Amino acid sequence: MRASLLGMYLVQAVAFGAKRLAQRRGLALRSTAYDALTKELREVARLEEVSGILSYDEQCFMSEGSAASRAAQKEALAGVIHEKRTSARMAEVIDAARGLKLDDARENANVRDAIEGFDVESRKSKDLAEREARLESECFVAWKKAREASDYPAYAPILQDMFALKREVAATTRPDVCAAGEPYDGALDAFERGMTASRLDAIFAKTREGLEPLLKAVLAKKRDAPDVDALPPALAFDHPGWKGSVEKQAELSKKVAADLGFDFTKGRFDVSTHPFTGGACPTDVRITTRYSDGNWLEGFAGTVHEVGHALYEQGRAGDAVGDGLPVSKALSMGTHESQSLLWERMVLQSKAFWEYAAPLFHEAFPHTKEASPEDFYRAINRVQPGLIRVEADELSYPFHVFLRYDVERALFAGELDVATIPQQWNAYMKERLDVDVPDDASGVLQDIHWSFGAVGYFPSYTLGAIMAAQIFAAAEDALPDLSDQIRRGEFAPLREWLRTEIHEVGSTYASPDDLLRAVTGDGIDPAPFLDYLTAKYGELYGL
Amino acid sequence: MRASLLGMYLVQAVAFGAKRLAQRRGLALRSTAYDALTKELREVARLEEVSGILSYDEQCFMSEGSAASRAAQKEALAGVIHEKRTSARMAEVIDAARGLKLDDARENANVRDAIEGFDVESRKSKDLAEREARLESECFVAWKKAREASDYPAYAPILQDMFALKREVAATTRPDVCAAGEPYDGALDAFERGMTASRLDAIFAKTREGLEPLLKAVLAKKRDAPDVDALPPALAFDHPGWKGSVEKQAELSKKVAADLGFDFTKGRFDVSTHPFTGGACPTDVRITTRYSDGNWLEGFAGTVHEVGHALYEQGRAGDAVGDGLPVSKALSMGTHESQSLLWERMVLQSKAFWEYAAPLFHEAFPHTKEASPEDFYRAINRVQPGLIRVEADELSYPFHVFLRYDVERALFAGELDVATIPQQWNAYMKERLDVDVPDDASGVLQDIHWSFGAVGYFPSYTLGAIMAAQIFAAAEDALPDLSDQIRRGEFAPLREWLRTEIHEVGSTYASPDDLLRAVTGDGIDPAPFLDYLTAKYGELYGL
Repeated sequence: MRASLLGMYLVQAVAFGAKRLAQRRGLALRSTAYDALTKELREVARLEEVSGILSYDEQCFMSEGSAASRAAQKEALAGVIHEKRTSARMAEVIDAARGLKLDDARENANVRDAIEGFDVESRKSKDLAEREARLESECFVAWKKAREASDYPAYAPILQDMFALKREVAATTRPDVCAAGEPYDGALDAFERGMTASRLDAIFAKTREGLEPLLKAVLAKKRDAPDVDALPPALAFDHPGWKGSVEKQAELSKKVAADLGFDFTKGRFDVSTHPFTGGACPTDVRITTRYSDGNWLEGFAGTVHEVGHALYEQGRAGDAVGDGLPVSKALSMGTHESQSLLWERMVLQSKAFWEYAAPLFHEAFPHTKEASPEDFYRAINRVQPGLIRVEADELSYPFHVFLRYDVERALFAGELDVATIPQQWNAYMKERLDVDVPDDASGVLQDIHWSFGAVGYFPSYTLGAIMAAQIFAAAEDALPDLSDQIRRGEFAPLREWLRTEIHEVGSTYASPDDLLRAVTGDGIDPAPFLDYLTAKYGELYGL
Repeated sequence: MRASLLGMYLVQAVAFGAKRLAQRRGLALRSTAYDALTKELREVARLEEVSGILSYDEQCFMSEGSAASRAAQKEALAGVIHEKRTSARMAEVIDAARGLKLDDARENANVRDAIEGFDVESRKSKDLAEREARLESECFVAWKKAREASDYPAYAPILQDMFALKREVAATTRPDVCAAGEPYDGALDAFERGMTASRLDAIFAKTREGLEPLLKAVLAKKRDAPDVDALPPALAFDHPGWKGSVEKQAELSKKVAADLGFDFTKGRFDVSTHPFTGGACPTDVRITTRYSDGNWLEGFAGTVHEVGHALYEQGRAGDAVGDGLPVSKALSMGTHESQSLLWERMVLQSKAFWEYAAPLFHEAFPHTKEASPEDFYRAINRVQPGLIRVEADELSYPFHVFLRYDVERALFAGELDVATIPQQWNAYMKERLDVDVPDDASGVLQDIHWSFGAVGYFPSYTLGAIMAAQIFAAAEDALPDLSDQIRRGEFAPLREWLRTEIHEVGSTYASPDDLLRAVTGDGIDPAPFLDYLTAKYGELYGL
């Protein structure tokens, strides 16, 4: 087809000048090779979207007795997707696209990522893809059970299988990455393009260096002046005003999600054990949170966090160059997390936000009328090292990530016995955060990630926090009125700026570093993150 | 693979007698051809199960703005399923299985239905399959909108497209059936194996003949003695005791669903506009119903009806011969409906059932304490011709079906202008049931079926009613204590009898006639249905 079209243009060329011929030949190459490629990519994308609905259903709706049949269904679908991704036809259109240079940067990104994805995927056998899908499903069910019973030993063997399989996947699909550094780099690369353990060591070392004295100073202050961050009684989790508040919390969270800009006509908002953002595509984005009677903060902050993810997803490019194609996808997990954390930390945890939100709480929960916006601000920014990563404050959160990073890197390298993880876990929590872990349910079993195969994912949380601080600083430069807008509950300007600068841009750039350079002038750099924390907590704790 | 195994057996045969050789050759043929076939069938089955989850999500969970992307996803999945069903590999294993005769009747049924399904499916091009999936999705969305606005003209063009497409599908996939009778037979055959319009004419004529005088007599009695079926005030839909009762209705319905034997660990129970049974497979069966404040009967009876369907699905054979294979599937839509109607009519609408259920209502809705089991029994068996098929009583229901049968058969034959349907519809409702249709939402737009492509489906409802009466009579013979068991809320004996006689049997037999002959001694025959109605309503209305 491509050859014959090209022939036609060559024949016509007799009537045209040489330059015109060259243009037309380029156009013909582009329109045939590129169009053939995107047609195949879109078909795969639709099937991946189906897989997204299946996963959401599994976590939000499916009954436990359906787990075995669901595993078989996911295996079959994963098999088909793998077949399509690596089919002879796909190989043909990929090979035809190799070396293709187009005028449009976004079209070029489609080609670049399609080839990269194909090369990674085609190294994975159908058998390996199916084993992976099945183990992820079974491991998730096992984790849910083990967590309920706080029974880590029941879970350890399948967790070991998971790491062994992920090592196999990394070595098979990213041999160069693994060979250049260490096997774990292959796992990292799946979530954070081009990131390596050695580079992470450097970024995390600088972050830790800045954080340790700050956290130490805050904790010392808390010891010396225990009332420094005392909650007003109305905001204490055990205030009777929060009894039976789950339904109203859900209502309020939905209202705020809508105000921030979550489009309910193109998504859902449900409840699940571990809050997450899922769904199929930009027109079907689904988020979850969880509520409890006492902790009024968890469900609300969780909502804002997931809305941050969802805005990225709903904002992905839906034009002809983007729809169903790689360039519309989120750039990396860290970039995704930068969006959720920007809304959670730079917005929700700002003083300005509570000028808008405190009156909403006053209305929904009349007992909070005695709490001022400043009280809410202080309540939501208390430094209080604890057991649970997703509940952690900004200062101690990175330490949860450092722990998981150490564990998964060592497990991956085969340098750690899966049976000893709880011991290592609990020792680290004691040493770094002075926290005693009472049981594995609140320790090593708390996170869903490893159970569904997300090994190498945790570092992205702290990379996201670092990037969020960088991006928000750029937004403040671009929107001088930003703080007042937030105060008035006007989130559209920030959201639209992010849409233009980040969401629609998707994977146009080749790495988070490139994106950040375009948006902020610098690559990934912990300095703005550390500056922000130092200024904020310095003021809050009078350091 | 098959050839080399066969060769091995031929070599070994030197050491065996001729008879033994023949046996072993049969075994080798069986184990290779049959196993290769079932492997392919199971892979397709898992993908069809995925499609079931997608449909359930679309009707219960998905937001409206996701419709376009969902249509594309369904199209991609349907394309893949069609590819798999008609692949070169499938053709190979199907051809190898042609003429295969196995000792086991259920294995033979797998082979029979696999070949039949392949022949039907392979006549459908990928393009046609994708157009079908896309139109079904779009038409469903259009129907939902049109029904809300009672705007039939907005819906008529896409309905016309649907019938045109279904005619194309029938003519393409079942050319022999269409040629032997009429094109509509090809549509019928998709839901009711071997059923034809001419045979339906005969069954429906006999049914109509028996029903018309009975319905006439009941309506005459109601005119002469308007109080003959007056509701006790507590059971009237406008009794204030039903205000705000939806939540309690849902609770009660869940309790009864569990008592009847719906396995909540292998399924879900939700709310949707049009109640239905869906899901993926026997271990993931999902049902819906709908509740309203006033009409306490609708949600409750709808629950029992869908539980009847669900028990069939949850009872399907999950052994090695059945799991993921054709023999485990429901025999036909009419057979499926026989199961829902058996529970709805022979159980829920019996006197015995209300000895069990009235106390549950008394407890949940204290104002009903003045209503006796007999009052409930009479309330749920009032003959009251109305607009809505799913709310119709047993006597007028068949006329709703006859109307739809006439319309779809004529539309299919191209003998009816889609624009004139409301007129024909409303005239029939007036003539046969003395009902005035105030708007199309309560007329031609009330049913979901055509909108998602179920053309030729409606006759199965009345076939199911006829079969339910036949099957229940056989159950009464087999379980002499049945009525007392129902009175005590012991539904396990009936459920287990059905499981053995119908559910696990699945598609072992080639037609509903064969199944009914095995279970009751006779093929499909309206006589027991008419006897049952005549006796029951004769007593209720003192005829």
